[in-house]
Amino acid sequence: MTMEYDLTITKLLERARDLFDHKEIVTALPDGSTHRYTYGDAYERISQLAHALDDYGMEPGERAGVMAVNHFRHFELYFGPSCSARSIHMVNHRLPEHHLVEIIEEAADRLMFVDPQFVETLEPIADDLDTVEQYVVLGDESDVPDTSLEAVTDYESFIDGYDTDYDWPAIDEDTESALCYTSGTTGLPKGVQYTHRGQFLHTLMHSHADVFGISETDTVMPVVPMFHVNGWGLPYTTTFTGANIVLPGQHTDPDELLSIVQDEAVTIAAAVPTVWMEVDRIIEDADDLGPESLSSLTDVLIGGSSPPASLIRKYDEVYDAPISQGYGMTEASPHLANTLMTTEVQQLPEDEQDRLRMKAGVPAPGVQIRLRDEGGEPVPHDGETPGEVQARAPWLAGEYYERPDATELSWTEDGYFRSGDVATVDEYGFLDIVDRLDDVIKSGGEWISSIELENALIGHDGVEEASVIGVAHEKWQERPVAYVATTDGVTVEELREHLLEEFPKWWLPDRFEFVDEVPKTSTGKFNKQRLVERFEEEYGSLPAEE
Amino acid sequence: MTMEYDLTITKLLERARDLFDHKEIVTALPDGSTHRYTYGDAYERISQLAHALDDYGMEPGERAGVMAVNHFRHFELYFGPSCSARSIHMVNHRLPEHHLVEIIEEAADRLMFVDPQFVETLEPIADDLDTVEQYVVLGDESDVPDTSLEAVTDYESFIDGYDTDYDWPAIDEDTESALCYTSGTTGLPKGVQYTHRGQFLHTLMHSHADVFGISETDTVMPVVPMFHVNGWGLPYTTTFTGANIVLPGQHTDPDELLSIVQDEAVTIAAAVPTVWMEVDRIIEDADDLGPESLSSLTDVLIGGSSPPASLIRKYDEVYDAPISQGYGMTEASPHLANTLMTTEVQQLPEDEQDRLRMKAGVPAPGVQIRLRDEGGEPVPHDGETPGEVQARAPWLAGEYYERPDATELSWTEDGYFRSGDVATVDEYGFLDIVDRLDDVIKSGGEWISSIELENALIGHDGVEEASVIGVAHEKWQERPVAYVATTDGVTVEELREHLLEEFPKWWLPDRFEFVDEVPKTSTGKFNKQRLVERFEEEYGSLPAEE
Repeated sequence: MTMEYDLTITKLLERARDLFDHKEIVTALPDGSTHRYTYGDAYERISQLAHALDDYGMEPGERAGVMAVNHFRHFELYFGPSCSARSIHMVNHRLPEHHLVEIIEEAADRLMFVDPQFVETLEPIADDLDTVEQYVVLGDESDVPDTSLEAVTDYESFIDGYDTDYDWPAIDEDTESALCYTSGTTGLPKGVQYTHRGQFLHTLMHSHADVFGISETDTVMPVVPMFHVNGWGLPYTTTFTGANIVLPGQHTDPDELLSIVQDEAVTIAAAVPTVWMEVDRIIEDADDLGPESLSSLTDVLIGGSSPPASLIRKYDEVYDAPISQGYGMTEASPHLANTLMTTEVQQLPEDEQDRLRMKAGVPAPGVQIRLRDEGGEPVPHDGETPGEVQARAPWLAGEYYERPDATELSWTEDGYFRSGDVATVDEYGFLDIVDRLDDVIKSGGEWISSIELENALIGHDGVEEASVIGVAHEKWQERPVAYVATTDGVTVEELREHLLEEFPKWWLPDRFEFVDEVPKTSTGKFNKQRLVERFEEEYGSLPAEE
Repeated sequence: MTMEYDLTITKLLERARDLFDHKEIVTALPDGSTHRYTYGDAYERISQLAHALDDYGMEPGERAGVMAVNHFRHFELYFGPSCSARSIHMVNHRLPEHHLVEIIEEAADRLMFVDPQFVETLEPIADDLDTVEQYVVLGDESDVPDTSLEAVTDYESFIDGYDTDYDWPAIDEDTESALCYTSGTTGLPKGVQYTHRGQFLHTLMHSHADVFGISETDTVMPVVPMFHVNGWGLPYTTTFTGANIVLPGQHTDPDELLSIVQDEAVTIAAAVPTVWMEVDRIIEDADDLGPESLSSLTDVLIGGSSPPASLIRKYDEVYDAPISQGYGMTEASPHLANTLMTTEVQQLPEDEQDRLRMKAGVPAPGVQIRLRDEGGEPVPHDGETPGEVQARAPWLAGEYYERPDATELSWTEDGYFRSGDVATVDEYGFLDIVDRLDDVIKSGGEWISSIELENALIGHDGVEEASVIGVAHEKWQERPVAYVATTDGVTVEELREHLLEEFPKWWLPDRFEFVDEVPKTSTGKFNKQRLVERFEEEYGSLPAEE
């Protein structure tokens, strides 16, 4: 039989120490300068951090909170606590105060590592953070701001003087390595516990030739935040493969990112699509920039939303840096699917290929995805019929932390995670996310995608914003109603004709409500809940004849 | 925490069924024709095979023996038994008869799947195979030869008529998926049990960008036999990634392999170095062949022994198909290390790079390798000091099947496998296998590599064969003695001078014995054991003054 061998994050770290101790970790510092050191240097400081945690009296399984942007000290925190059998809790500083209190208390963070600029985020809630004993500001003594926080030290003092090697403990692979909360649109955040095993497997998968193929020869820049879902897992992947990693810190404006890509010869960068649109615009507008400005880039990784076809074409043809999508979520560490231009797909006409690149991609090796309708029945993979994305993967959570109620709703009896995303799967295996289950409109047993209608409405020249909601209907259960902000007096008839070019008649909204602006949530998303309430207050349900 | 998700071979098969059912499995049949079908077709027949095993009454955990070359039915046997919770025992038909009896009995194979041409290998030992109830000839009715075997059927009849889908059972990932015996040079073969988990991880690692990077767009030809160490694991890897696989069957002569590479546009092929030397020679000698003859090949994988620099240079420069080495062994599924041209190495002069390509390579992700001296102490990774290769990996066995004695010798107390290979590790992390521990000569606390001396002696124009053994020495514990077969009266002095160009004086053999031919084992290796006995009979030990 196979030898005892726990799949742990420690193995990732030790590989970098043994083989890639000369490779670089580069951080863009707040003052505009650059911090550079090696995996070898990082290993020594990670060892010091682990000793400091020992000295502090932190027990196995206890958690340290981290509230930070992407930089080298945050990188060290990805390993020091986890490899010494503790766990880190990555805290999203953008959460509302009562959410921060809730999750820090639930995680029972004893230590809180915090960037200087986020100290003021913690000050107003510090009295409610009963478990936090010590704040560690991520910098040296001079970086600690004047603060009302008690028990404050700085990171450099915290780790100073400890031994630069550490006798890492054996860790059962099913041990928690990190805790991360989903920032759902409704309700309190839900905790997801990552395990050493899950992260090891996710890391190995990331370098698969048909996923991101991240190699020792790459220089990887995660723009996606490390305070959420492990920065897509990229810090683990670069460590295991010995790729250089470039951390942009607070410099996440597109013009700053463009400079970093050029200065550091970044080959792979991961960010949301808008970043790449902006970078393209900057290059277009500048006299001294051209296609060669992105010559180091070989792969552009995006996630979060679908990029327009024009952007895909541009990066492929002009910049020779094809865009790959990654599809995933907090519960999935996050990776579930990615663009995969198979032998078959490469034979298709270019516009067909672009169309596929706009989709979420093909399940990664190890991921099983199925589509289910409301009754839990299988949905055909015909590229048309939508169903909820349900998934299994060895790096997917099996529960929410201390939330049996939410767990019961989100996992099926046969062990699949219910993503809440509605998608189609086409003949090439490509997943296309068409809606959220909460937003999809259930009309007479069929599903109408609110997102597809919204995208089509936005495509009309006279429309500035459009949000489509489902409203209770006496006969059809639900019917779509569109809230539209227009510029120049577009008529309902024009919008109906516009939509009919793309959709069958029964998809068309029963009503179009013209508004000055669509109401939004605190995170900038359309507040559909508010719209539904507003419609119900004003009209009640839609009558059967409509 | 992470969901329950067993890492099983079934997951590999299901991925091919779901995403790559149109991709091809191609076999060169004995009659010179080609058998082609898809992973979808294979899936259906694998399901039928599993039903047939149910019907036969084969219990979970029981084993089916397989004695076959590389072809599509053998491919089906990689999945049908394992995915239905049985196991396959791959039998090396080249073993001596008493070894075959020993291992088939130990494995308790109930069924024996056998190629028509190997039926005569089993006939003389059939009376001793007490556990085997049924022989299944890998072909249809017409392929069954006249035979003295009892209870013989053919594979097509065996699986005929069963359902083409199967409800695969949940399997604990630590369950045995296959059993393979090492064909050691001394003693009886030792069994290695592969597990589902080990094979899943080995498969995921195989497609890592820094291992073989096997992708859906590849067409892979394993020339390495499937009856040993899973055909390097390549049939699993192609299934998981959806790469086409090309199985050469009995057509393993270099000219036949060259034709197959061309006909099937093979991109990755795995074989021993001599195959690639022969293929090169054929191209050189033919009027109508040239560098374009191998244009489809992107990677040439070799293992088993180190290729000459000239071959490495040729395949890189002329054929644009760089050679990558894989280093491993039966116990390791087999992969432990491979050529990895890192950023740093790519900066070196070309001849330095070639020198590194001749080495066994860098540990694969997940593999931990250390060097130890005879006393178990660490050996520096300075590219010079030799030590025994000891390894850990999640796909490495932890014991020999039912052989606690052998297990105790081959695993250290802290859980490392003792490979018995002696190697150096250089500053780039490259492992260079310099000898077998059994053959290394322990002289005054230092190790002298018999293989390096042999290679140097062979490099002398007048030497046809050379074998260097360690002989007991009163003062130095052991000293080297060379047995040399020469053509034209080479003198000892000439050989000493030749060796002094490369080695320090204390490495030089104390004696040179000239022989007509070096005695060999049944597998063609130098019989060093026989030489040691001969020396001792003739001379006893070496006296202290020598």
